[in-house]
Amino acid sequence: MITKNDIKFIQSLKQTKYRKEHKMFLVEGNKLVGELLSSNFKVEDILVTDLWLEKFPEMAQTLPFYDIISPKQMEQLSSMVTPPGIIATAHTPSYNIKPEDAENEFIVALDGINDPGNLGTIIRTADWFGIKKIICSSDCADAWQPKTIQSTMGSIFRIEIMETYLKEFLSKTQKLQNSKTRIYGALMDGENIFTKKIENKNGVIVIGSESHGIRQDVLPLITAPIHIPRGEGSKTESLNASVAAGIILATIHNS
Amino acid sequence: MITKNDIKFIQSLKQTKYRKEHKMFLVEGNKLVGELLSSNFKVEDILVTDLWLEKFPEMAQTLPFYDIISPKQMEQLSSMVTPPGIIATAHTPSYNIKPEDAENEFIVALDGINDPGNLGTIIRTADWFGIKKIICSSDCADAWQPKTIQSTMGSIFRIEIMETYLKEFLSKTQKLQNSKTRIYGALMDGENIFTKKIENKNGVIVIGSESHGIRQDVLPLITAPIHIPRGEGSKTESLNASVAAGIILATIHNS
Repeated sequence: MITKNDIKFIQSLKQTKYRKEHKMFLVEGNKLVGELLSSNFKVEDILVTDLWLEKFPEMAQTLPFYDIISPKQMEQLSSMVTPPGIIATAHTPSYNIKPEDAENEFIVALDGINDPGNLGTIIRTADWFGIKKIICSSDCADAWQPKTIQSTMGSIFRIEIMETYLKEFLSKTQKLQNSKTRIYGALMDGENIFTKKIENKNGVIVIGSESHGIRQDVLPLITAPIHIPRGEGSKTESLNASVAAGIILATIHNS
Repeated sequence: MITKNDIKFIQSLKQTKYRKEHKMFLVEGNKLVGELLSSNFKVEDILVTDLWLEKFPEMAQTLPFYDIISPKQMEQLSSMVTPPGIIATAHTPSYNIKPEDAENEFIVALDGINDPGNLGTIIRTADWFGIKKIICSSDCADAWQPKTIQSTMGSIFRIEIMETYLKEFLSKTQKLQNSKTRIYGALMDGENIFTKKIENKNGVIVIGSESHGIRQDVLPLITAPIHIPRGEGSKTESLNASVAAGIILATIHNS
């Protein structure tokens, strides 16, 4: 039985502050709740409306448990214009990604990606290319907010993500014994990403922010500067951050 | 002098119906109005608030003309949560993109891209890679709506874009004398885009919709099926439409 206080508590998870405090987050809609349930995440609540139960009897049968709430309560909890009728709460996992991990695989490092949609899209893209670990500077958007979760299309349940002090992490990566561990980053005067030879399938790929690119104190730590060249005669100033990240991940992954 | 009726008229341009009827559209914010003014587009009105004039005296000096409106009027016209204080109207150009154009350059064909943000981002990406012509199916989002214009970051002023009946356009492209004019499209069983050799720098690149991919009656017209392979062990179902478009345009452009 869901009490008024439960609803209040769950509603509080729409705010970063309370998500961090309680180490919990919200997942909404059939597709994402389905992905959550098939993940290893610990699920706390599953809330549905009567209308949802009528509309999706088959999915309802697959739910391990659920509580029914009113459409009005669902509206309070939902972050969508049209609430899909199913919402769940789950416990935020904590991952420990270490600089040494970059000796064996690619790690994506996000530097100030503050648009939740871009953040989610980058997580989704990294997952597509088989990347398992993402580190974020503390000024990135919160990965566990509803809009980011939505944009990941479920990839958030398959990837490790950790907030960290980028400069320190990358300094340690630079000092690793395996001298072939590169730190890639898009810089104006970097090497053409389409012709650069990527020698090893490991290292850190730093993605800069939408408006400022890679921050000043991280720049000197980039050991493999790259660049996405513009077409001839193009006067565009920049690419969208998640498109640029997609092209970088695709190219490094497949070269 | 701007009348109440003028404001009403300009406000009507927030709706696709009236944009189409009057062949005009809205441009908002310093960056985009600046790009508009340095383009060849015919500008009709430039409206600013007193506060904007105070904040941006230098940009104000570069405006060829302007009218001052009240903050309340600006709110009526703006599509943004925080109106930037400058908005302009301009005439929608009409372009004539022909199948034969694909004999000499790459044309991007958008098939049912209905999210305005994705549409704008794809226009911006195409512009980055030097593509000059985009055709859209009639069920694409309207390219001249505020959200799309915003997402193009000004690329809308540098690229030709035309709504057309895709199937007919592509049928005609297929029948062109130059047999090297390919029609590229992302299909599940397409060739790996990272290893496929792109022989000529021309043809049509079809980008499918967010939810359905390339539509059924267009599929048989694809002569060069391509595919963005997933990383090993990845369980993601799809990429974001504008990220996929970015990877396709980048790869075809640079292979």
